[in-house]
Amino acid sequence: MRIDLVPDDPFGLHNLPYGVYRAAGRAPRVGVRLGSYVVDLSRLLGDEVFATGSLNAFMAQGPTRWASVRADLAEALAGEVSDEAVHHLADVTLELPFEVADYVDFYASEHHASNLGRLFRPEAPDPLTPNWKHLPIGYHGRSASIVVSGTDVVRPCGQRLPPGADKPVFGPSTRLDLECELGFVVGVGTGLGSRIAAADADEHLFGVVLFNDWSARDIQAWEYVPLGPFLGKSFASTVSAWVVPMAALDGARIAVPPQEPVLPYLAMDGPWGLDIDLAVSINGEVVSRPPYAATYWSPAQMLAHLTVNGAATRTGDLFASGTVSGPGRGQQGSLIEIGTGFLEDGDEVVIAGEARLADGRRIGFGEAVGRVVPALPWGEEQGDV
Amino acid sequence: MRIDLVPDDPFGLHNLPYGVYRAAGRAPRVGVRLGSYVVDLSRLLGDEVFATGSLNAFMAQGPTRWASVRADLAEALAGEVSDEAVHHLADVTLELPFEVADYVDFYASEHHASNLGRLFRPEAPDPLTPNWKHLPIGYHGRSASIVVSGTDVVRPCGQRLPPGADKPVFGPSTRLDLECELGFVVGVGTGLGSRIAAADADEHLFGVVLFNDWSARDIQAWEYVPLGPFLGKSFASTVSAWVVPMAALDGARIAVPPQEPVLPYLAMDGPWGLDIDLAVSINGEVVSRPPYAATYWSPAQMLAHLTVNGAATRTGDLFASGTVSGPGRGQQGSLIEIGTGFLEDGDEVVIAGEARLADGRRIGFGEAVGRVVPALPWGEEQGDV
Repeated sequence: MRIDLVPDDPFGLHNLPYGVYRAAGRAPRVGVRLGSYVVDLSRLLGDEVFATGSLNAFMAQGPTRWASVRADLAEALAGEVSDEAVHHLADVTLELPFEVADYVDFYASEHHASNLGRLFRPEAPDPLTPNWKHLPIGYHGRSASIVVSGTDVVRPCGQRLPPGADKPVFGPSTRLDLECELGFVVGVGTGLGSRIAAADADEHLFGVVLFNDWSARDIQAWEYVPLGPFLGKSFASTVSAWVVPMAALDGARIAVPPQEPVLPYLAMDGPWGLDIDLAVSINGEVVSRPPYAATYWSPAQMLAHLTVNGAATRTGDLFASGTVSGPGRGQQGSLIEIGTGFLEDGDEVVIAGEARLADGRRIGFGEAVGRVVPALPWGEEQGDV
Repeated sequence: MRIDLVPDDPFGLHNLPYGVYRAAGRAPRVGVRLGSYVVDLSRLLGDEVFATGSLNAFMAQGPTRWASVRADLAEALAGEVSDEAVHHLADVTLELPFEVADYVDFYASEHHASNLGRLFRPEAPDPLTPNWKHLPIGYHGRSASIVVSGTDVVRPCGQRLPPGADKPVFGPSTRLDLECELGFVVGVGTGLGSRIAAADADEHLFGVVLFNDWSARDIQAWEYVPLGPFLGKSFASTVSAWVVPMAALDGARIAVPPQEPVLPYLAMDGPWGLDIDLAVSINGEVVSRPPYAATYWSPAQMLAHLTVNGAATRTGDLFASGTVSGPGRGQQGSLIEIGTGFLEDGDEVVIAGEARLADGRRIGFGEAVGRVVPALPWGEEQGDV
């Protein structure tokens, strides 16, 4: 068969994102998306590296191989494809596309960090901490709690300090939030005691996903001093099912916003910003349109910083941008910034994204979707101290 | 052969810690330590689950199986053992005993948290933050940077803010520290959206290791507000080669120090303190003897807290106690508390540990050893902004 594409399809031959799908009664396999179809890569290319339930083995093969597979795919998918290798998206379920090794969340948006600084530290003269423009602030998160788009999110329970109280209470979070982010997937890491230069980031970065770093603001506010967010974040983070290759985004590279002078290890040798439009919807209504292009720190800088101390990286490492917020109204990437309330049980949150290439074509990312379901029973006995 | 034990050997039949070893020219295997020997478990018990390079497959089999293997071992090792299954420790290298899934570091010692509060927040009226006695504070760390005892530790480079300066400089850490801790290894986890009750911790906890959470205090001080430690910790953490089974420590269970009232999910149904003596040596000289028994929060409470929000746990999860410090002089578990200076290149740090059982016998943990080696070249160009 020949795979039909709609005009200007954001999942055309210029995109070709990778994912892991399961056809009814079959084991999961690596596939590539073209239009509204997923193509079985091990059948198409006859390579067993794709006959698994994760992208990790392929990602570990490195950038030369990524480029050659991408070229082979563009050629093979432009012609006739065996019917047996093709599934309509409606006929498959999509799974977590890669095994997550270490997961780090950054805090790379100046507008978001300023908005949160004003909310969490209203007494401070500057909403940004003194280190903010010198390094991309980041922290490690919980890899086991990363789920694929479509997975329900159970409202977390935990401790929170009610206003004016001197001791905490226990129960479901009453300030459940979303965070609209991009995630960057490391294909090839380096051992302990080595560094990745910002200029070499392309040798290591495999692709990009949409990311929702669900956050319980009441749990977070009570726990996070002095060692950072923990249970306020670790209950779930949602990634989109498709990993868009970095190579598909070459035409979306733009300059990052002007930066203050940085230490040499954070210098870049080319444009590392990305012209990607994000959109957050709740129950079908768009509540925000954060522009990723406004993000201060680039993924190359995040990776260089993450490894400058010699930290080891591995295939499947995921680092996220932190909440993406633009400067304008309607561009904030979290509800605490928007200020109109938090998530209710039953709410469905959809983060969508699309890159604009310099030649006018669009690159689709799909969606990172999650529905909030009620908290686990917690009982009377979990009430007061 | 019959394996000789010295009188009161802390690695006798009452201990039987698990590890992964490699004999010359052979693939790594799971073994058990008895006296000064390691015994090949797949040969001894004829079970392929041990013919691998990690404990994870065995740990995933769960607590009933852990108990039956322990009983089988005690019986098999009390008699004649095939020469081919036995190696002297001098003839093997020891490897990382398990694949680390998620790694969390807690902050469970009141004496340590008080000491650090006074150092980092001298202006605060109380050295403990208001949340400290309500929850075991923790944060996620970097699993990829966890190494087995004996691995050299490269002095990390990074940003630090010199006293009085208004912008950071780059270079090797000048305040490299150790942290003497215990690590707890999860054998069986639970899926996303479930909790582990403190009373059920024994069903999930497989064993205990010694742990050195190397820390660059200058990097940490500059980066850690507001999202916690990152590069100041992620360059290396050392675990001992032997995982002491929880079952071997039944006789070392004691009450934890008196606690303020806690929320019900943190209540315990029995003694969860551990009477374990730790010792920190630098270049052969003991600099501290931290008593683990003085630690405020128990491992059962740490695990209950870690999962109370529904976070997923997995086989191979590691959570550490945080620095163990006692109330007395000579009991502090880090150099910043001891106050006599930081680590120099070439320094060898040894953390050793031994449990005291109620019946007077001792349980050996071995050592977590690491030598500091000079920083990677960083060059002139990495100097000032």
